[in-house]
Amino acid sequence: MSLPPPLSLAARSLRSSAVRDLLRDAHLPDMVSLAGGLPDAALFDVEGIEAAWEALRQRGLRETLQYGQTDGDPGLRETLAGWTRLHGTPAAADDVLVTTGSQQALDLVARTLLDPGDTVVTESPTYLAALQVFQLAGARLWTLPNDADGAIVDRLSALPAGPRPKLVYLVTNFANPSGASLSLERRLALLRWAAEHQVFVLEDDPYGLLRFDGAALPSLRALSSDVPGAAPWVGYASSLSKVLAPGLRLGWVLLPPALRAACVRVKQALDLHTATVTQALAAELLRSDRPRQHLPRLRRTYAERRDRLCDALQAQLGDDVAFERPEGGMFVWARLSEPIDTARLLPAARAAGVLYVPGEAFESTPGSARHHLRLSFVSAPPERLALGVQRLARAMRSHKP
Amino acid sequence: MSLPPPLSLAARSLRSSAVRDLLRDAHLPDMVSLAGGLPDAALFDVEGIEAAWEALRQRGLRETLQYGQTDGDPGLRETLAGWTRLHGTPAAADDVLVTTGSQQALDLVARTLLDPGDTVVTESPTYLAALQVFQLAGARLWTLPNDADGAIVDRLSALPAGPRPKLVYLVTNFANPSGASLSLERRLALLRWAAEHQVFVLEDDPYGLLRFDGAALPSLRALSSDVPGAAPWVGYASSLSKVLAPGLRLGWVLLPPALRAACVRVKQALDLHTATVTQALAAELLRSDRPRQHLPRLRRTYAERRDRLCDALQAQLGDDVAFERPEGGMFVWARLSEPIDTARLLPAARAAGVLYVPGEAFESTPGSARHHLRLSFVSAPPERLALGVQRLARAMRSHKP
Repeated sequence: MSLPPPLSLAARSLRSSAVRDLLRDAHLPDMVSLAGGLPDAALFDVEGIEAAWEALRQRGLRETLQYGQTDGDPGLRETLAGWTRLHGTPAAADDVLVTTGSQQALDLVARTLLDPGDTVVTESPTYLAALQVFQLAGARLWTLPNDADGAIVDRLSALPAGPRPKLVYLVTNFANPSGASLSLERRLALLRWAAEHQVFVLEDDPYGLLRFDGAALPSLRALSSDVPGAAPWVGYASSLSKVLAPGLRLGWVLLPPALRAACVRVKQALDLHTATVTQALAAELLRSDRPRQHLPRLRRTYAERRDRLCDALQAQLGDDVAFERPEGGMFVWARLSEPIDTARLLPAARAAGVLYVPGEAFESTPGSARHHLRLSFVSAPPERLALGVQRLARAMRSHKP
Repeated sequence: MSLPPPLSLAARSLRSSAVRDLLRDAHLPDMVSLAGGLPDAALFDVEGIEAAWEALRQRGLRETLQYGQTDGDPGLRETLAGWTRLHGTPAAADDVLVTTGSQQALDLVARTLLDPGDTVVTESPTYLAALQVFQLAGARLWTLPNDADGAIVDRLSALPAGPRPKLVYLVTNFANPSGASLSLERRLALLRWAAEHQVFVLEDDPYGLLRFDGAALPSLRALSSDVPGAAPWVGYASSLSKVLAPGLRLGWVLLPPALRAACVRVKQALDLHTATVTQALAAELLRSDRPRQHLPRLRRTYAERRDRLCDALQAQLGDDVAFERPEGGMFVWARLSEPIDTARLLPAARAAGVLYVPGEAFESTPGSARHHLRLSFVSAPPERLALGVQRLARAMRSHKP
């Protein structure tokens, strides 16, 4: 007999990420990929990375190559705390836990808080790799619907009787895929609810710095000092992937002290610590102030692309598509006219030379996003975005539902 | 109320790693640390790392900073497969799954195979961060005793009736902490048992290349083609931490195809992928052939230190200590004369200026290693090792059990 070993229940429940499977085709010649959330590599500050390496090299790399602390390189924790404060969220080096991408922060918090069968509240649609983390932890999902002001947190009052949820997970700024940001009123309402019901809220904020229009909203962590009893129930995760470079795999999470200590113990079992070489590189780069100086260029470039994509959608598809123009982030979340199932349209789109992510990839309620698609506007230059929309329009015309 | 959020059962069961807590004191002035398993930074091939970076830089870093494949950089998978074959274990690039240190390989396999309540077989004493992984997965441990030939695999016949174990985990060469290697006869017996009972065996081999004396033993993976039906039940994990540099956090695992595919799906949820920058650096370095040329120097240096530590133990402690001189690896596993509990001795040792890891840190059966201590011979030069043993002897003389 040569059967493969039987998998755990949780592993069997995981589907492969549709986004990552699609990425393979993104490299085909002349394909326009509006699918992956890949920042444009042309915008990476390669010169800054090279200078950071050179500074490290001159100081001596030897100790940087040794085992490091589980909670992160002290220099990086210090610079990340400064970076976080600079953008309005209180943080000290001792609050920061460095993670192998912010994806690990979700997994770390999930594993530290969740037993199988526990309930996690999230919005629908939501970030699909977060859904995978909660599936893997054996959690039950309970979802909030969302609108242009983010998750409708009032619906928390409709939670069924029984054990209270262990975790609420939300992307508060320019959510993936909806592009919506949670309004200030809802942020405050969520904090009051968390304090009253003693439920931990993890705010995931990879996109907040990519705001093109409108005023920044304070993070839940920043607001929590105004809501009595809320502070111990709030965590804040972010990432360097969208503003520096994803290949460094560096994220961080700010947590209340007892939870942070427990997460550090769990991280010892996960990977001992995050790569020290990339941590030292990022700390050096943040100290140089180049990332702050680079932000306006990122915002300007991506804002122009958002406009080009949205304008092309309106011009080419008119009433066949509905969407909100997002104030930042990376994605437009569009709804096609009723008869088109976006998962079924995908082969025709691919044949026409354009890729997107069908809405069903972000569903936690099956069937809820069948007519939606997520379009990324960051990975391609403006003229390619317009070409991609032309191809999408052609695929829609040729598609027999 | 401001209670911290309640932790999961698994997270509550984790103790902090005694080794990692002790590492803090390792940096005190004049402390001799025989505790941590840190390779000597003086032996890192810094020049090779610098040359690898320069080669990457000249070819252009931009694409290296982008998101990468979940199963690892194709160039690194290719070079790791070659590295593995060079040392006698069959491997193709498509078998390799790159992990964030080999620690992540253990966690990945555990999460992909284990449901809470499943049984894992390991030896006692064993690597403590592996125990943490299995605790975190909610597994039950069933342990094999070990001797100078490694785990006594015959005892598998004494497994209690009931569901068969899901996983056997063993460090086959120079085990941590015992220093023993599993004999050829036991390797073959284990493979026959795994094939017959259809239980997956994960061989963890971070130390195999640090062999100073005697002939290398073939890995379970290499032997599995000789044992009918065994191949699908064997995985092989290794690491670049001991032979290149731990700060890169690079390990890999070779798995049968279906299990590998499932582990890739789980890794998407864990950290999307391992840092691309460190992967590219390691691939470049392995292609340069410098790591192979560097191995004899590592072995020579560590062999000399092993001898110095063992000689000092015999000279200073004589009959008060019993140990086997290991043929490789990093550790001497010593047993003190009965009345001394090594956890209780530690404060006196620390006061005398030497650190070690008490045996209890490696116990999966409480009380089984109370009189043992693990002494690392790799982190300090020979004269410091001898000084450490002198201090240990002084602490033992002053200690009132």
